Amino acid sequence: MARPLVLHEDRLFPADPGARAIARRLYQSVRDLPIISPHGHTDPSWFATDAPFANATDLLLVPDHYLFRMLYSQGVSLESLGIPGRQGRPAVDPREAWRIFASHQHLFRGTPSSLWLDHTFATVFGLDVRLGPDTADHYYDTITAKLAETDFRPRALFDRFRIELLATTESPVDTLAHHEAIRASGWESGRAGRVVTAYRPDPVIDPEHEAFQASLARFAEVTGEDVHSWDGYLAAHRKRRADFARVGATSTDHGHPTALTADLPRAEAEALFRTVVSGKATPAEAELFRAQMLTEMAAMSVEDGLVMQLHPGSFRNHNPLLFQGYGRDKGADIPTPTDYVRSLKPLLDRFGNDKRLTLILFTLDETSYARELAPLAGHYPALRLGPAWWFHDSPEGMLRFREMTTETAGFYNTVGFNDDTRAFLSIPARHDVARRVDCAYLAKLVAEHRLDEEDAQQVAADLAYALPKRAYKL
Amino acid sequence: MARPLVLHEDRLFPADPGARAIARRLYQSVRDLPIISPHGHTDPSWFATDAPFANATDLLLVPDHYLFRMLYSQGVSLESLGIPGRQGRPAVDPREAWRIFASHQHLFRGTPSSLWLDHTFATVFGLDVRLGPDTADHYYDTITAKLAETDFRPRALFDRFRIELLATTESPVDTLAHHEAIRASGWESGRAGRVVTAYRPDPVIDPEHEAFQASLARFAEVTGEDVHSWDGYLAAHRKRRADFARVGATSTDHGHPTALTADLPRAEAEALFRTVVSGKATPAEAELFRAQMLTEMAAMSVEDGLVMQLHPGSFRNHNPLLFQGYGRDKGADIPTPTDYVRSLKPLLDRFGNDKRLTLILFTLDETSYARELAPLAGHYPALRLGPAWWFHDSPEGMLRFREMTTETAGFYNTVGFNDDTRAFLSIPARHDVARRVDCAYLAKLVAEHRLDEEDAQQVAADLAYALPKRAYKL
Amino acid sequence: MARPLVLHEDRLFPADPGARAIARRLYQSVRDLPIISPHGHTDPSWFATDAPFANATDLLLVPDHYLFRMLYSQGVSLESLGIPGRQGRPAVDPREAWRIFASHQHLFRGTPSSLWLDHTFATVFGLDVRLGPDTADHYYDTITAKLAETDFRPRALFDRFRIELLATTESPVDTLAHHEAIRASGWESGRAGRVVTAYRPDPVIDPEHEAFQASLARFAEVTGEDVHSWDGYLAAHRKRRADFARVGATSTDHGHPTALTADLPRAEAEALFRTVVSGKATPAEAELFRAQMLTEMAAMSVEDGLVMQLHPGSFRNHNPLLFQGYGRDKGADIPTPTDYVRSLKPLLDRFGNDKRLTLILFTLDETSYARELAPLAGHYPALRLGPAWWFHDSPEGMLRFREMTTETAGFYNTVGFNDDTRAFLSIPARHDVARRVDCAYLAKLVAEHRLDEEDAQQVAADLAYALPKRAYKL
Repeated sequence: MARPLVLHEDRLFPADPGARAIARRLYQSVRDLPIISPHGHTDPSWFATDAPFANATDLLLVPDHYLFRMLYSQGVSLESLGIPGRQGRPAVDPREAWRIFASHQHLFRGTPSSLWLDHTFATVFGLDVRLGPDTADHYYDTITAKLAETDFRPRALFDRFRIELLATTESPVDTLAHHEAIRASGWESGRAGRVVTAYRPDPVIDPEHEAFQASLARFAEVTGEDVHSWDGYLAAHRKRRADFARVGATSTDHGHPTALTADLPRAEAEALFRTVVSGKATPAEAELFRAQMLTEMAAMSVEDGLVMQLHPGSFRNHNPLLFQGYGRDKGADIPTPTDYVRSLKPLLDRFGNDKRLTLILFTLDETSYARELAPLAGHYPALRLGPAWWFHDSPEGMLRFREMTTETAGFYNTVGFNDDTRAFLSIPARHDVARRVDCAYLAKLVAEHRLDEEDAQQVAADLAYALPKRAYKL
Repeated sequence: MARPLVLHEDRLFPADPGARAIARRLYQSVRDLPIISPHGHTDPSWFATDAPFANATDLLLVPDHYLFRMLYSQGVSLESLGIPGRQGRPAVDPREAWRIFASHQHLFRGTPSSLWLDHTFATVFGLDVRLGPDTADHYYDTITAKLAETDFRPRALFDRFRIELLATTESPVDTLAHHEAIRASGWESGRAGRVVTAYRPDPVIDPEHEAFQASLARFAEVTGEDVHSWDGYLAAHRKRRADFARVGATSTDHGHPTALTADLPRAEAEALFRTVVSGKATPAEAELFRAQMLTEMAAMSVEDGLVMQLHPGSFRNHNPLLFQGYGRDKGADIPTPTDYVRSLKPLLDRFGNDKRLTLILFTLDETSYARELAPLAGHYPALRLGPAWWFHDSPEGMLRFREMTTETAGFYNTVGFNDDTRAFLSIPARHDVARRVDCAYLAKLVAEHRLDEEDAQQVAADLAYALPKRAYKL
Repeated sequence: MARPLVLHEDRLFPADPGARAIARRLYQSVRDLPIISPHGHTDPSWFATDAPFANATDLLLVPDHYLFRMLYSQGVSLESLGIPGRQGRPAVDPREAWRIFASHQHLFRGTPSSLWLDHTFATVFGLDVRLGPDTADHYYDTITAKLAETDFRPRALFDRFRIELLATTESPVDTLAHHEAIRASGWESGRAGRVVTAYRPDPVIDPEHEAFQASLARFAEVTGEDVHSWDGYLAAHRKRRADFARVGATSTDHGHPTALTADLPRAEAEALFRTVVSGKATPAEAELFRAQMLTEMAAMSVEDGLVMQLHPGSFRNHNPLLFQGYGRDKGADIPTPTDYVRSLKPLLDRFGNDKRLTLILFTLDETSYARELAPLAGHYPALRLGPAWWFHDSPEGMLRFREMTTETAGFYNTVGFNDDTRAFLSIPARHDVARRVDCAYLAKLVAEHRLDEEDAQQVAADLAYALPKRAYKL
């Protein structure tokens, strides 16, 4: 018989009854605050077209690399799950894929995926039994049926989730047509909801990106600039940053292999750029160019006010077989040790003391929290710390983030939560986890008399709402 | 007056009464499961000859580097403890050595050694007062007297400990005579007990091992192969792996300074081998050869099905004075930072997606748990994570292992517990600690409503019994 | 209305009532033990002259880089806080600086600074409302008025704080006049109080120190040695070490960028020294010279018995703009990854087994606790571990230190607490935090039946009092 699905109201709170009572009180005051999602990867076409989602598998499994990487690690083929490859989408019945997923739920015990999914199942779809082989079809049918209803269209869910602001991420060669369409549709007028973009220039900045040359060519078309000259290339960036700002962007985002920055003399930067556009850059030159471009982007941020985000340290596409068959973002990106102290110095030497710049740092290398990131952010006016990211966007990961950054950087050099997700339906679940974990951490401080409850209440609200708005200039 | 020795039934469980009650229930269901010890360093001659152990000092102190390294760090000489040196065994009364040990018990406060010893003293020898200067002779006499009894012979203890399977570790030049003798003795028939070997080829793979050339010569004799040619050398490995499998081995084990792997073209590998056997390899060539051999071993594992274990990252024999006087394994091995992401790539590029391979990774560098090992094991079908190892085989170490790997790799990409010990009598204690700590961790998840208790029960049993059997193909 | 300032008697103890009760009992037995402060940076002139402190800002804010670095990170200028720059002291009313500080108290939520300050405000000045914009003037007036009273002079506070021993830190070119004056004043006779110095030779050892050449010249004057010859230079060190020992020093201290040591043949060391004094050393030569000097200092410690402290791993003066304007020690020092295993080997090869040497190791890189420092200190007789340092001198930092070192090194290879502070008034607060956190850690071990309470009591007392006295030969 199917086991009941219950979201316990005290989940993620400390076991000790005294600390738990404090956590409950703190959480009560922040649970219903609107969601600010200043960084993520949802698809703006959902909100532009408001077309219904297709079925449970396409909505919840296929785009979620947390899920299919775990299944893959235990011998389940991506093909059997219906994950599209370079040869197109495999001819797999989405219901069959869902059944495979349902029969491997034990793999997710103790993972954040199980928390996010159960929250989605229960609160969005009203499911009250747990997912398993016996309930796979019930789940598939219930979810797929609901998705056809008006109340489950993207804009309706957006409102139901109480999202005040959602940022997507686009490349400089994107037309921004979906964002224009959202603005033109009148959906946002008179509502709290707002969908904005963010400027993610990696494809035209990273010489090792497989689409670099093609993106440069497109960058020229979109901007009308001579992007193969250094001046034209920089001008094209400025132009597009302004375009992005016009459809609401307040930030840029940079996904580099390392946090290296450089501040070359103009002539050297220009010569390096010539090498890069020639397609003959060595790996070291490619790295130096990315490094230089971070400083160039910081310089533009000082001018145009866009907040800068740096997401470094992922070894992308670690599995060549998978990359050949399926391309990017298929769960084969692995974190690496990441230096900040020496890497950021050229950029910080120039702009670290400049209050016009906000540079939000993320990491996949938790060893840098207490050793590098908190000491840096606790000193430089331009720096702020982004929340626990990716593999660390989890209860233990968030707790380690607070335990290892608060004592040196405080709460006010951090920027609240980012869900950073492609999985639209998981957004309320993720923000709920973040609020609960922050309240649990604060409750511990209160229970140990390291913070008084009135202050903790203020911090909880700031982390959930005020800090992301302030840091991202929303 | 001597203080009582009490093993509290709730030891290692969370202090919070609610979480503790959950931990108790979980532990109750796994405490009496048979012991699977798939990786360790006990001496197979004990089970082949079933001769009695000599005395307390020789059994419990002399072979335990955890104990004598701590004493040494506080100025106690190895000689005074009766530790054999290169010049042979010092003329020290074992009772005197035991007294020295007894008078330094405060050094072990808060260490796993104290947990293991007290468990052994109380459950194996029935001692009910604590070890100290005042009880040193009582301990020495009680233990030494018991060891002369039939019930305290190795096979009797093996049965009493409810060991279902125990793996020892032998070198490719070992005759396997003890394992043959165990099989021939009929001891195992009709019993749960089984003692098997594991293939540990370091002495014939590591050009920097002090016995490398001598081991190669012996390798030739044992196999009848021309081990100084690349083909003959590989053939010799294949032959011995098959020999080991015949006396029960299901695994190989590799103790390398780093996790570096390589996948050289055949001609380059052969040339490198020629340099290595010439004795003229540089440190870099020695490292590359070890790296290449890991991939060769993986290739053989794909053929013969032996599970592969990698134990990297120890700086062996850090103290030259001690090494000169006492040789290897005297407590002077120190962990170093260990990379997995780049190091394993050549091997993973070739075999990472191959379900026929199981590669179990260990580490002495806990920074790799959340950053590298969990993301790798949560993706590659060939990878599994071994338990917290050596200095981290301890309550806090095990807890950190779970906290830093579970959210990304889950429980089912881990392989349960390895005691990895030379100290036969500590085996039940070590497995008991591992079961208690896993139950404590699971109880916390249940108490915080991150996992339901029924699932936690299943996980506890899998970690204690099913996962090691499955991972090691037992 | 101002909120009350209350120091809860259970602060920093575990939330669980059972564990908390144990922590309380442990703490009760150590709370009133005298303070041993064997390493710090207070100004000996305070105790020599016993002149009153000027006002709240000059005493509590201006010298405390923890405080002004946090304010600076949020856009408050150092000038507005009255921090002296290279151009002298800004013309800022200290009361205005205090008001700025008071209005930014939220930045310190969850930080050790808030614990230290509240303890100082409540116990030293009897303040019973919390600091904030509304109470800024009340604080400023109360504190400044009290400082004019006899009971608040340095020596009176020293006695009130129950400091048994306080070490300051001086450079080899210091005249030691203040220490001589303290001794001549008769203040110490018949009292528990004792103020001693420690030998910190960085300015004459680090070729990259901005004052290196000037310090060498002064070193020659003070010692009468030919410090530009290798023999004379070493003789000058010996002489000054003896001078320092005469005014009570029992230790030396070394603040190097890394933990690198070297043990060069005499001719090479001498040649390197010639390069260094010529002012033409490359960064690599400067690093090698510092490395060599650590081994030379260890050799002298074996002779003269001074305990050696190594504080490595800070990237000093990371912010060039700030360094230009304000010089050293202005909150812009950032930790870096620090290796110990390979770096210390040359020194340990020579002296690691020598019981005449005590080398106390500190780190800013917590990843080394369990991986390198505990295994090293749990083996080498010459090594001990200093407490959690600088950014990690905090409740979470101290807890991590114990959790990651105890299981391998035990408690008895650590040396108790160092406050390492310039902020004299915070000394009781810092020792109180350390005692509370150690008792909280021990209480957890007792509650989980990993240590019995009688042993925990002994450990608590040893950590608070006996171990620092023994380690520093006091």
